[in-house]
Amino acid sequence: MKNICYAQSGGPTAVINESARGVIETARAHPDKIGKVYAGLNGISGVLNENLIDTSLESDAAIAGLRHTPAAAFHSCRHKLKSIEEQRSQYERLIDVFKAHDIGYFLYNGGGDSQDTAYKISQISSELGYDLQCIGIPKTIDNDLALTDCSPGFASAAKYLATSIREASYDLASMAASSTKVFILEVMGRHTGWLAAATGIATDRHHDAPHIILFPEHVFIPELFLKKTQDCVKKFGLCTIVVSEGIKDQSGHLVQASTTTVDEFGHAQLGGVSHIIANLVKKQLGLKYHYAVADYLQRAARHIASKTDLEHAYAVGKKAVELAIAGENAKMATIVREHNSPYAWRVDSAPLEEVANYEKTLPPEFINEEGFHITQACRDYLLPLIQGEDAPPYLNGLPEYTKLKHNMVEKKLPELVLL
Amino acid sequence: MKNICYAQSGGPTAVINESARGVIETARAHPDKIGKVYAGLNGISGVLNENLIDTSLESDAAIAGLRHTPAAAFHSCRHKLKSIEEQRSQYERLIDVFKAHDIGYFLYNGGGDSQDTAYKISQISSELGYDLQCIGIPKTIDNDLALTDCSPGFASAAKYLATSIREASYDLASMAASSTKVFILEVMGRHTGWLAAATGIATDRHHDAPHIILFPEHVFIPELFLKKTQDCVKKFGLCTIVVSEGIKDQSGHLVQASTTTVDEFGHAQLGGVSHIIANLVKKQLGLKYHYAVADYLQRAARHIASKTDLEHAYAVGKKAVELAIAGENAKMATIVREHNSPYAWRVDSAPLEEVANYEKTLPPEFINEEGFHITQACRDYLLPLIQGEDAPPYLNGLPEYTKLKHNMVEKKLPELVLL
Repeated sequence: MKNICYAQSGGPTAVINESARGVIETARAHPDKIGKVYAGLNGISGVLNENLIDTSLESDAAIAGLRHTPAAAFHSCRHKLKSIEEQRSQYERLIDVFKAHDIGYFLYNGGGDSQDTAYKISQISSELGYDLQCIGIPKTIDNDLALTDCSPGFASAAKYLATSIREASYDLASMAASSTKVFILEVMGRHTGWLAAATGIATDRHHDAPHIILFPEHVFIPELFLKKTQDCVKKFGLCTIVVSEGIKDQSGHLVQASTTTVDEFGHAQLGGVSHIIANLVKKQLGLKYHYAVADYLQRAARHIASKTDLEHAYAVGKKAVELAIAGENAKMATIVREHNSPYAWRVDSAPLEEVANYEKTLPPEFINEEGFHITQACRDYLLPLIQGEDAPPYLNGLPEYTKLKHNMVEKKLPELVLL
Repeated sequence: MKNICYAQSGGPTAVINESARGVIETARAHPDKIGKVYAGLNGISGVLNENLIDTSLESDAAIAGLRHTPAAAFHSCRHKLKSIEEQRSQYERLIDVFKAHDIGYFLYNGGGDSQDTAYKISQISSELGYDLQCIGIPKTIDNDLALTDCSPGFASAAKYLATSIREASYDLASMAASSTKVFILEVMGRHTGWLAAATGIATDRHHDAPHIILFPEHVFIPELFLKKTQDCVKKFGLCTIVVSEGIKDQSGHLVQASTTTVDEFGHAQLGGVSHIIANLVKKQLGLKYHYAVADYLQRAARHIASKTDLEHAYAVGKKAVELAIAGENAKMATIVREHNSPYAWRVDSAPLEEVANYEKTLPPEFINEEGFHITQACRDYLLPLIQGEDAPPYLNGLPEYTKLKHNMVEKKLPELVLL
C-alpha cells in the first residue's frame, strides 16, 4: 500500500485547506487502499528537501478544523521547476524522496504553474520507470485554470470583494454630497479580470455600485475612463471604481509597472495601481477620492467564504484521491457545471497536459460593450459560485483558526545538494 | 407635541443606522409624547437647507432593516459650524427651521465636532428663547469621544480589522519561507490609536500576529521600527505590521505628509503611510512585502459587525429619546462599563459641554513599554466590545442592505441664503 504526497502551491486561498481536508479524510476512509498522507512543508520545496509532514499524526478534529481555516495549512511556495532538461537533478531528487517514503501518489494543489509541475513529474517518473500517479487539484483566486468551470478559492474572494464594494459604496453615498465622490478598490488578478468582474455582481436592481470596473482584458484609455467617471458623478453624485492590478495601456504595458521586484516565476510584483487611478481622478477631474487595497485580505477572508466554494474545494480534494485509487495518472480534478439555475455541478477530471500553463482569461462576452462592466452572461456564470455562507467558529469575538502540529516524517536521504 | 430632528454627522460606521433605529423606534413607541422624527438629509447641511426626511413615511420593516445596513442611511456631512459669533446667521437659520417644523428636540449622532455643534445649538436656542432640547448620540470608529466608555462604530471596525490581520497573517505564514515576509495593514485613526490598538486583540495564546503596531501616540523612529521588524523576521520568519494613518515622526510631523515625492514615471506618489513603511522595509531590510489599505472597508464592514457594538448603538439612540422625553438638554447619551468580565454595561448621560471637542487618545498604559503592542489592560478593555456576531440577511450570496425612501418634508421657508 502506497502513501500519498500532497502539497499546496502558490498564493493561498480561503478554502485551499478544505481541499486538503478532502484529500486527508478521503484517504483515511480508504485504509485498505491508501497508506499515509504526507504533506510537503512549503509545497514542492518541502518535497525536494524531504520536509514531509505526517498528517496521520493530526487528530480528526484538527483535520476537520481545516474547513474553517484560510491560507495554506501545510504552507506553500512559489518554487517553479524548470524543464526536465534544465533541472534534471531536481526531478530525480523528487523521485528519490518518493521512493524513500513509499509514495505512490503525488497530489499537487495549485494553479496553472503547479499543474505544469505535476505534469512534468508524471513525465519524469514514467521516464525513470518509477510507479507514480500524479493528480492535480485546482486552486486559484484568479480563476484562470482551464478545463474546470471554476477554481476553488475564486468564489470566496469574489464574495468578499463584491461585499466590500457594496459596503464601501454605501459609505461613499453617505458622504458624497459634501465630501468624497470617488472610491477606488484595487483587486488582484495579474492577467485576468475574473476578480474584478466578480465585483460586478454587487450591481443589481437594488444597488448601482460598482459603477466602473477596469479589467486587464480591456485596454485602459485614461480619457474614456475619466469621461465615464465624470458621467457617473453627474448621474449618481458619486462613482465607485474597481481596478484590477493588471490593467494595461494601449501599448500593452502594465499601468502599474513601478515595482522592481520580480518573483521566481518572473512575474513583476504588482500593486499600487489604485494610486495612479486616484491621481488621475484628482488631477483631471478635481474630485476627492478614497481608495482601498484589498491585497491578502481578499484571498484570506475565510470569515465570509462562499459555501459553494467550500463544497467545490472539498469535492476536488476528495476526487483527487478517488482518481488515485482508480489508477488515474496525469489528471486534474475538475468542476463541471451541469445547470445554471438551479445550479447543478459535479466533479470530473481533465488531462494535466491540457491544463498546464494555460491561462483562461475573461471571455469577451463577459465584458459589456463599453468595457466598464460585466454582462448578464457573466452574472449568470458568477452568481451560483458565491451562494451560501459558512461562518467559522468564533472565540473571544474573533474567528478561531486551526494550526496543525506539523510532525515531520523522519528523513531517510542525505541533505539536498542541488547542482 | 413636538417633533424630533435627527441628523447623522461625520464619517459613517457599520452601526450608526442602528442608533437611528433606536431613535425612531423609541419615538414611535411614545406617540403620546413625541410627534414625528424628521431626519436631516446630509446631516446638519440638510437642516440648514430645510431638507428634512419624514421618517414616519418609512415602514416598520424598513426601519428594522437599518440594523443590518452600514453607512449613514440619511446621509452625513463634514460641515462644522464655527462659533456663534462667526456664523450667527447659520445658527439663526437652524432655529428658523426648527420653528417652522415644530421641532422641540435636536438629536445629533456624531463624534466630537458634532457634539460641539449640538452644544452650540443648545446655547443659541436658549439665547433666542426657543424651547429646544439638544441631545448628542455618540458615534465614531475612532473611539475618541470623552465621557463614554466607548463610541458605537468603533467595536465593529475593531472586529473587522482584528479579523483581517489574523487572516492575512495566516496567508503570510503560508508563504514566508520562500516569498513575502512582511505584511502591512494601514488603518484609520488620524489622531488616536484606538483602531490600531484594536488589531492587537488578534494576538493571543494561539496567534502571534500582529507583531508590530504603530500608534499615533508613539513617536515613529524608523531605526527602532526596522530593528523590531528584523527581530520578528528572525524569530517568527515573518512580520505582520499594523500602521495607523496618523503616525508622527520625532518632530511631530505626520509620516504620511512626506509623500509628496514623484516616482520614476512622473506620477505623484499618493501612497498612504503603508507605502512609506513598505518602502522602508524593502530598501533597508531587503524584505519582500505586501500591504493592504482598509480605508472605507473598515468602517462599512457590517457583514462582520460586533453584536455588542450593535447593542450599544441601539441603546444610545433609545436613550437619547428617553433623555428628550425626560426634559434633559445639552446632554450626550453615554455607555458606562460596570464590569469587565463578565461584561456589564448600562447607558447614562454626560453634559455636551464636557464632551465637545475633546479627543480621547489611547491611555499610555494601553501601549506596552517597547511601544509596538498593546498591554493586558488594553486587551481587557477591548475584548468585551467585539463580542458576538450578527450576520446581515444575504440575498443572492451578498448582504442585502436597506435603502430608505427619503420622502422629503414640504419646505416652509425661503431658500437658504448664507451671508
